[in-house]
Amino acid sequence: MIALWTGRRPPTRWPSMLAVLVLVPVLSLAPSLPVDAAERGTGDLGVVIERAAGSVQIIETSGNHAIGRITDLGDLSHASVVFSRDGRYAFVFGRDGGLSKVDLLTARLVGRTEQAGNSIGGAISQDGRLVAVANYEPGGVRIFDAATLAPVADIPATYGDDGARSKVIGLVDAPGQRFVFSLWDAGEIWIADLSDPAEPAIQRFTDIGTNPYDALLTPDGRYYIAGLFGEDGLAMLDLWHPQAGVRRILGGYGRGEEALPVYKMPHLEGWAVAGRRAFIPAVGHHAVLVVDLDTWQQVGQIPVAGQPVFVMARPDGRQVWVNFALPHNHIVQVIDTETNAVVQSLEPGPGVLHMEFEPRGEEVWVSVRDRDQVQVYDTATLAPVATIPADKPSGIFLSARAHRIGL
Amino acid sequence: MIALWTGRRPPTRWPSMLAVLVLVPVLSLAPSLPVDAAERGTGDLGVVIERAAGSVQIIETSGNHAIGRITDLGDLSHASVVFSRDGRYAFVFGRDGGLSKVDLLTARLVGRTEQAGNSIGGAISQDGRLVAVANYEPGGVRIFDAATLAPVADIPATYGDDGARSKVIGLVDAPGQRFVFSLWDAGEIWIADLSDPAEPAIQRFTDIGTNPYDALLTPDGRYYIAGLFGEDGLAMLDLWHPQAGVRRILGGYGRGEEALPVYKMPHLEGWAVAGRRAFIPAVGHHAVLVVDLDTWQQVGQIPVAGQPVFVMARPDGRQVWVNFALPHNHIVQVIDTETNAVVQSLEPGPGVLHMEFEPRGEEVWVSVRDRDQVQVYDTATLAPVATIPADKPSGIFLSARAHRIGL
Repeated sequence: MIALWTGRRPPTRWPSMLAVLVLVPVLSLAPSLPVDAAERGTGDLGVVIERAAGSVQIIETSGNHAIGRITDLGDLSHASVVFSRDGRYAFVFGRDGGLSKVDLLTARLVGRTEQAGNSIGGAISQDGRLVAVANYEPGGVRIFDAATLAPVADIPATYGDDGARSKVIGLVDAPGQRFVFSLWDAGEIWIADLSDPAEPAIQRFTDIGTNPYDALLTPDGRYYIAGLFGEDGLAMLDLWHPQAGVRRILGGYGRGEEALPVYKMPHLEGWAVAGRRAFIPAVGHHAVLVVDLDTWQQVGQIPVAGQPVFVMARPDGRQVWVNFALPHNHIVQVIDTETNAVVQSLEPGPGVLHMEFEPRGEEVWVSVRDRDQVQVYDTATLAPVATIPADKPSGIFLSARAHRIGL
Repeated sequence: MIALWTGRRPPTRWPSMLAVLVLVPVLSLAPSLPVDAAERGTGDLGVVIERAAGSVQIIETSGNHAIGRITDLGDLSHASVVFSRDGRYAFVFGRDGGLSKVDLLTARLVGRTEQAGNSIGGAISQDGRLVAVANYEPGGVRIFDAATLAPVADIPATYGDDGARSKVIGLVDAPGQRFVFSLWDAGEIWIADLSDPAEPAIQRFTDIGTNPYDALLTPDGRYYIAGLFGEDGLAMLDLWHPQAGVRRILGGYGRGEEALPVYKMPHLEGWAVAGRRAFIPAVGHHAVLVVDLDTWQQVGQIPVAGQPVFVMARPDGRQVWVNFALPHNHIVQVIDTETNAVVQSLEPGPGVLHMEFEPRGEEVWVSVRDRDQVQVYDTATLAPVATIPADKPSGIFLSARAHRIGL
């Protein structure tokens, strides 16, 4: 276990934890692919989840190459990743409750804790010192020291009179050293302020709606929005004014009364914000919806090739890229945000699962699971410029995320 | 000279250049301060310009320390910096026309070219492969390979019938591998498309106003705005629709008819964009102006302690920090962007020259020239948390800028 820096505010006591901290001997883990030089910048690095193999591939976006692989990371179906503030380490959240810390410079696993039985993603605090994991079983949030993976705090998601614990979803970081998350079973949103990591201050918002299933934070860190599986509409909390409570927006958003078959609930993290408008996946419909962020009203609807899963804005906001649920998951469409028209349909191949833009938007990485490929496209010409072999790739995460709020 | 990667689109021919390329033997340059380990992430690094000494100090924002110094960089009054896309290298633009490439990992100067007699800043292309410098003498823009500093293209800023050359200011990168800049003497804005580096495609916009003295690009890369020294109002070009030409906005913005003494023309790069509003320094007045970015109309005016120089938004847009010209350059004020009220006046000391937020906004770095200090403030408590000695510090630049558009 490597500790590169120590916290300025070390926790004075650590709550008792069920988690098992597994110390991994660094030298025993050889990377599957060689890494030439550990002395290099980390700003152009990233990872690709190889979901079936339980490994991640390390990529670099300057030459568009794979440069390393780290194996034995457990169940990486539905895995997600956040980065240390220096961009060197990726924290990989596995579906099996495993939290792995991997070193992008040396392609080594440097820490792993099997912190719960079943988890659904995580976040890193604004100051980079704390990593939080959202758990299904046991339901709650656990918080770890980003340097050592030592346990720092445990927040059980208890609700009701009998002390039942709820599954937790939609965990994000927010300004002010806060984490925000939703309770699936309880229908609640919680804000945890970790300014004092030993004494998390919790604010609970109850009756926010039935079965929140996913959530997002707007890129400025202000609005937390949870999707509701059990009813239409979305629950929105203004983190500048939490005392105003949760309000319901976009009442028609959701499965609706038509009982359309929904092949995959869209990811809310996939909301694209361009200027003052958000482009969001319709549920069940072959459409991307346009929402005015001042009024939270729908102002447009763009017909697309299938049921959208991720709707992602190019960093300059001029384009939105969309992928789809089965049976249209071989297609990617590009929308011009000025005309709200689809300007290109691409067919990268079967099983397009995720997309990630390079931070200044010149290229976008697309995972094509059933071709065992990651494809890179030039966003000006919309032409493919590189193809990288990958084993059943799903999520793609670039280290520039270290510098963004609410991921 | 170290070439870490080679371009995918190498220029097929290089124009003849007056520039002198100085190859620096790497091993002969020992850093002034030791750097422990070159194997580390680069996402939390940055540089502080030491203007009088002609040096830069390397800093890291995780523990808030200085970790190295690089000397002999020439005249660094009014110096600026951009970063390589991997965050490892800083390109330092000196007032004397020197372009220096420094390695943040080893604290070494790895390349330097004295490319002109007098220059005023630069930019790095969207793909990170080209570095452009705006020159006063000889007037124009020169473009270099970011890996080698080899000359790639020369764009003389000629105008009028006699082939006179204009000083160039306000150079920024824009999406689509473009650079945008203004011609002080000519009153023109040019867009240079470097998609083919050997054949820059130039678009000229003439009669944009008298003596553009500085410019900015909105954070989304869409609007290029030049300030006019010779008249009131600003010249604005929509890069999504350059064919629509330059239009004049904010007719009252500038020195005005009152002939107020202006102690320092404010920096336009210091415009703060928070949501759909920009907070901009009034010229000559003790005020920050609030401008609606949809209508380009002034919608508010906030009284402040002096003539503002830099007006900078915290990355989440909730705060704006302001520093001032003499005789108020010992003060920094913090504005709440929701109430448009000054919520705190700080006195870091005489000669506050620049401020830089950490990318997720938890801390801000402030250079205090006449105290030979850089001070770091917690933006939640507004309390100082660290002080770093520096020799007459001016500009502060963090490597997260590598991932932003229009700097």
